[in-house]
Amino acid sequence: MLTVNAWAAPSAADPLVKTTIERRDVGPHDVLIEIAYAGICHSDIHTVRGEWGDISYPQVVGHEIAGTVTEVGSEVTLHAVGDRVGVGCMVNSCRECENCLAGAEQYCLTGNTGTYTAIDRDGTITQGGYSTHIVVVEDFVLRIPDAIPFEKVAPLLCAGITTYSPLQHWNAGPGKRVAVVGMGGLGHMAVKIAAALGAEVTVLSQTLSKKDDGLAFGAQHYFATSDRQTFTDLANHFDLIINTVSAEININHYLRLLRLNGTLVSVGAPPEALPVQAFTLFNNRRSFAGSGIGSIAETQEMLDFCAEHGIAPETELISADQINEAYERVLASDVRYRFVIDVATMA
Amino acid sequence: MLTVNAWAAPSAADPLVKTTIERRDVGPHDVLIEIAYAGICHSDIHTVRGEWGDISYPQVVGHEIAGTVTEVGSEVTLHAVGDRVGVGCMVNSCRECENCLAGAEQYCLTGNTGTYTAIDRDGTITQGGYSTHIVVVEDFVLRIPDAIPFEKVAPLLCAGITTYSPLQHWNAGPGKRVAVVGMGGLGHMAVKIAAALGAEVTVLSQTLSKKDDGLAFGAQHYFATSDRQTFTDLANHFDLIINTVSAEININHYLRLLRLNGTLVSVGAPPEALPVQAFTLFNNRRSFAGSGIGSIAETQEMLDFCAEHGIAPETELISADQINEAYERVLASDVRYRFVIDVATMA
Repeated sequence: MLTVNAWAAPSAADPLVKTTIERRDVGPHDVLIEIAYAGICHSDIHTVRGEWGDISYPQVVGHEIAGTVTEVGSEVTLHAVGDRVGVGCMVNSCRECENCLAGAEQYCLTGNTGTYTAIDRDGTITQGGYSTHIVVVEDFVLRIPDAIPFEKVAPLLCAGITTYSPLQHWNAGPGKRVAVVGMGGLGHMAVKIAAALGAEVTVLSQTLSKKDDGLAFGAQHYFATSDRQTFTDLANHFDLIINTVSAEININHYLRLLRLNGTLVSVGAPPEALPVQAFTLFNNRRSFAGSGIGSIAETQEMLDFCAEHGIAPETELISADQINEAYERVLASDVRYRFVIDVATMA
Repeated sequence: MLTVNAWAAPSAADPLVKTTIERRDVGPHDVLIEIAYAGICHSDIHTVRGEWGDISYPQVVGHEIAGTVTEVGSEVTLHAVGDRVGVGCMVNSCRECENCLAGAEQYCLTGNTGTYTAIDRDGTITQGGYSTHIVVVEDFVLRIPDAIPFEKVAPLLCAGITTYSPLQHWNAGPGKRVAVVGMGGLGHMAVKIAAALGAEVTVLSQTLSKKDDGLAFGAQHYFATSDRQTFTDLANHFDLIINTVSAEININHYLRLLRLNGTLVSVGAPPEALPVQAFTLFNNRRSFAGSGIGSIAETQEMLDFCAEHGIAPETELISADQINEAYERVLASDVRYRFVIDVATMA
């Protein structure tokens, strides 16, 4: 066992504090990673505050992890000491169900093993990336291309893949009109990736306050959803809408923006059920879909795509003792567009 | 103008009565059809009773029409006197919007011209098929293959195409597990067509009372939705679910039956919004979609497909003076599986 520094939530109500946790010994197929950077995802906040269900404490979160391999198990072939690598939202899966066998282990029918709060194969509770080291089985570890700045890459492991996967699956590309709802951590990545894929990108944001950024990231159009006229002007317009907003929205208003055979994909997850009018779906043969992260192979593809296209998240680097303050700023939408923890400050 | 016999609703509250209506003179592109058979669709009942919005009275309904051409306009090239032809749920569209130009005139962005209660191009209200004759522009008239029994074909023009279109669009076929929810007029056609397409077909019906029929129509499996165990046994199982039930159902229970990349398509339309859990859609990357009838080209394809595969609706032939009684039996689900009016009895 390896005792390592980490920042953990001691309870649902208390701020995160510096502590130590145990990492398992490096097994034959494991990789020990010295974490350099960890992104802060809104999911981290929901989780530690118990908003997505009860968890055990103390809990370390963080599933946007970038680091360097410092040790490999005897059977490891995919990674070597010194490699820059990443870890995202999952660290294992059953490898036996039809989804795992189909290369869609993010949809593992027994539930993939989440990077934090999951029951690991050895029965322990997984602890996330706000920590100096992590041990992960090699085939759930990603290679980070040199072309992506190391201090910016971490958010690709969640925000990047969560938007890349549906954009690819629903064929965003030349000739397709893609709308991105919300201009936060996920939304800004969706804009960059959809634009790089060649789609005509429109941002639908609450206000126009981030319009200059949206256009700089590659969007051609930017509309405020607080203006009701937006929903009239853009009726029957989009082939694909990526909804990154976790708060409840009037889903029918957005569905009506889809043209023939269009799909609205939610990657944000309001806990409340969304009331869908069947007649809204009949018109234009519309679909309402969901998508969760992406497979490991697809995550590697996304990293390589971002390297090739010069795409990186917009980040603000913070030290570990700023995590709690950063959480409040995430909740206030006061971040452009992702906080990344400089894990060296946990030493 | 041609004065013809018809059965019309005099108000939302009164039974249908025998009357006469006017049909327009046959224009250069029109076809005059002597109607032989007209199917009774549940939509007819909703419509005449004002349950889908106020309409003007008297109103003739019926959008499952089979008859014989008795006169053609000077420019008509698609049909000839003596041809057996059909008319479905629409009799025109704008022909200019992007959906019409894409050959998806059922999704005409200005609204297709419904076979009844719509405002026709000449400003009159369209009157449906419970009538001895109808005049329709030639390219919204279908050819009826000889191989389909004339007295049974009418329900294909609505129930047939409404289920054929989504089965084709979402690639029902060999290796695909397809569920049909509901075993009524639409459901029984969905079973026959999906089976003919080569899919593995399962019926999900309230009870097992129609199980023998379902298996005879080509289903391999038949489950009662009143048994909660059904939803456990079939979790993550289907590639495609066609929901033909217009009553409100717990949509999340059905969505959870979809396997990876599966789609639930509603062709029944409850007026109430259906509360959809986003997390249910995330799992297995599920989609919830809608579909409305089909294009004219697709309707012709469906008729030819049914002829080739020996598919016909199960019908009960009634005389015109039995229409009101038939309505009550439709509402009581006491029909196997579609009433067809023998229009000769309107003489």
